[in-house]
Amino acid sequence: MVSAQKEWIQSLRSGDARSLARAISTVENRASGWSDLLKALFPYTGKARIIGLTGAPGAGKSTLVDQLARLYRNTKNPHSSRKERGLNGAPDDTYTVGIIAVDPTSPYTGGAILGDRIRMQHHFADPGIYIRSMATRGSLGGLARTTADVASVLDASGRDMILIETVGVGQDEVDIVRLADITVVMLVPGMGDDVQTIKAGIMEIADIFVINKSDRDGAERVEREIRALQSLAVRNDGWTPPIVKTVASEGKGVEELGAAVAEYENYLQKENRALKKSVENWQQRLVEMLRDAMLEKARARLGDGSIQRLAAEVAEHKRDPYSLIEEIAGKRS
Amino acid sequence: MVSAQKEWIQSLRSGDARSLARAISTVENRASGWSDLLKALFPYTGKARIIGLTGAPGAGKSTLVDQLARLYRNTKNPHSSRKERGLNGAPDDTYTVGIIAVDPTSPYTGGAILGDRIRMQHHFADPGIYIRSMATRGSLGGLARTTADVASVLDASGRDMILIETVGVGQDEVDIVRLADITVVMLVPGMGDDVQTIKAGIMEIADIFVINKSDRDGAERVEREIRALQSLAVRNDGWTPPIVKTVASEGKGVEELGAAVAEYENYLQKENRALKKSVENWQQRLVEMLRDAMLEKARARLGDGSIQRLAAEVAEHKRDPYSLIEEIAGKRS
Repeated sequence: MVSAQKEWIQSLRSGDARSLARAISTVENRASGWSDLLKALFPYTGKARIIGLTGAPGAGKSTLVDQLARLYRNTKNPHSSRKERGLNGAPDDTYTVGIIAVDPTSPYTGGAILGDRIRMQHHFADPGIYIRSMATRGSLGGLARTTADVASVLDASGRDMILIETVGVGQDEVDIVRLADITVVMLVPGMGDDVQTIKAGIMEIADIFVINKSDRDGAERVEREIRALQSLAVRNDGWTPPIVKTVASEGKGVEELGAAVAEYENYLQKENRALKKSVENWQQRLVEMLRDAMLEKARARLGDGSIQRLAAEVAEHKRDPYSLIEEIAGKRS
Repeated sequence: MVSAQKEWIQSLRSGDARSLARAISTVENRASGWSDLLKALFPYTGKARIIGLTGAPGAGKSTLVDQLARLYRNTKNPHSSRKERGLNGAPDDTYTVGIIAVDPTSPYTGGAILGDRIRMQHHFADPGIYIRSMATRGSLGGLARTTADVASVLDASGRDMILIETVGVGQDEVDIVRLADITVVMLVPGMGDDVQTIKAGIMEIADIFVINKSDRDGAERVEREIRALQSLAVRNDGWTPPIVKTVASEGKGVEELGAAVAEYENYLQKENRALKKSVENWQQRLVEMLRDAMLEKARARLGDGSIQRLAAEVAEHKRDPYSLIEEIAGKRS
């Protein structure tokens, strides 16, 4: 490890927000040295609790995440070693929080950046909450992998609770929340088709259900629907995901959600379940990392521009792509 | 090529729906021989026009796709060579259609299969329309790739028009429609946050916009929003995506959509644009195929169960995953 990196990591670990931001950017953008940085940070990871929250657009994810962050900021962390780390100006013995907001937005609209700024302003006074928005990357970027890596940086920086929010519709979102220790799926009454959609892809991976805006008509119906689905498919680990009703905009039900999270955490501690889940997560992450690394290797071997040249040959039907790939992958390195 | 496969392909090419269904299942499930099948079918591909349609849940995609399919079934195909292929019982000189419906559903709800059956019944009488639903696959399945392969099978079977519909929110959907020759993005008035969401990820890749349910209040506002976005970011190929207003449930605007598709096709024919787009598509597909093939190679080298064993070592913090992957990828094959 070069000494500049050592200093950087020390500063990041002492709670410096700028060092943290720089580290996250490096990892997110796969900038020079990102891999070495993650290697150096790895020994400091594994302490944070990662909570993934997902729900349809308009379900109130940001509001609930903010409320949950506030709750943790006001809750004493029995395992806090904050004094050593000396998080500037923040209370010393409550949970610190990192928020990763994954938005299906793009440079075209700039939604993520704008939302980021608004929310940053909101929490500006509290260095114990760090918020980062991530936009959806290009097709082969592996958003789930990048999000997991960014969470590792936050973990290494000493954040106790990491909240990841995503719009829960596509496979990307399923992959992202699957990498969390605890997955919270948010539903709202009266969203018709959207509830159907979110039910489909993501219901299986919920550890906790939240019915937000539960003061609206139809909250009972949503609850009945969840119960009906649960009766159809029992989880093979024996956990029955509780249903928490919230009105996030008024802070209602947030403590109950915190309690449900704590209960699931207790459950995870038993019979090595947390480790088992972590092994499963790493299995997925390793496969993705291996895919990327092997692709990089193949590309390096092929040289610049050759994929494009081969694509032209396939497009002109001069070569069949399936034999072509077998040929490339089969080559000795 | 074994002779059983030869017969299978002949039967598929002559319009036999059962042979087609079997081929699609083989490719979709990566069942034994899928790769050889695709190799054998490749020479027959490249003739179909692939149209990707995407929009938020509830935008009316299925209805519009059905209407568009009906339109093509009643439109004379000037290049038809149907007589030779002899599509059983169907008119001989109109466009034949294949529909791939990609649903973010899962075995948990069975939505895809149910919807499939209902729609199949609807078109049962017309062998010129073949409908196939695909559920979202597990995390590393590469849904876009599988969809593209299934489209290739339909293409090789002699379908003139292939319509792919997806729920347009996640990155998966962007990847899927990106592989189409023509991308249609559907919006509907009065969907609030959803319109915002779909605007974000997918607006850039639209070749044609459809405002469905355009008899509702707010259709003009949606049109203005699209125009505003278009004024912000001009496409670098000089094409300005037209906006077609439809009421799919009443068949309104469907002919106009067909005309817009034809206009874009004409545009693509000029200056080799179709080939250029095909090269770009194949570039993406080759990279994905290479990723998968290289991963397979690495896994075969590692042997069964070793990913799980390594994941356990990482989860227990005995090894850092970044160095580990470098080590595996770096190994000589």
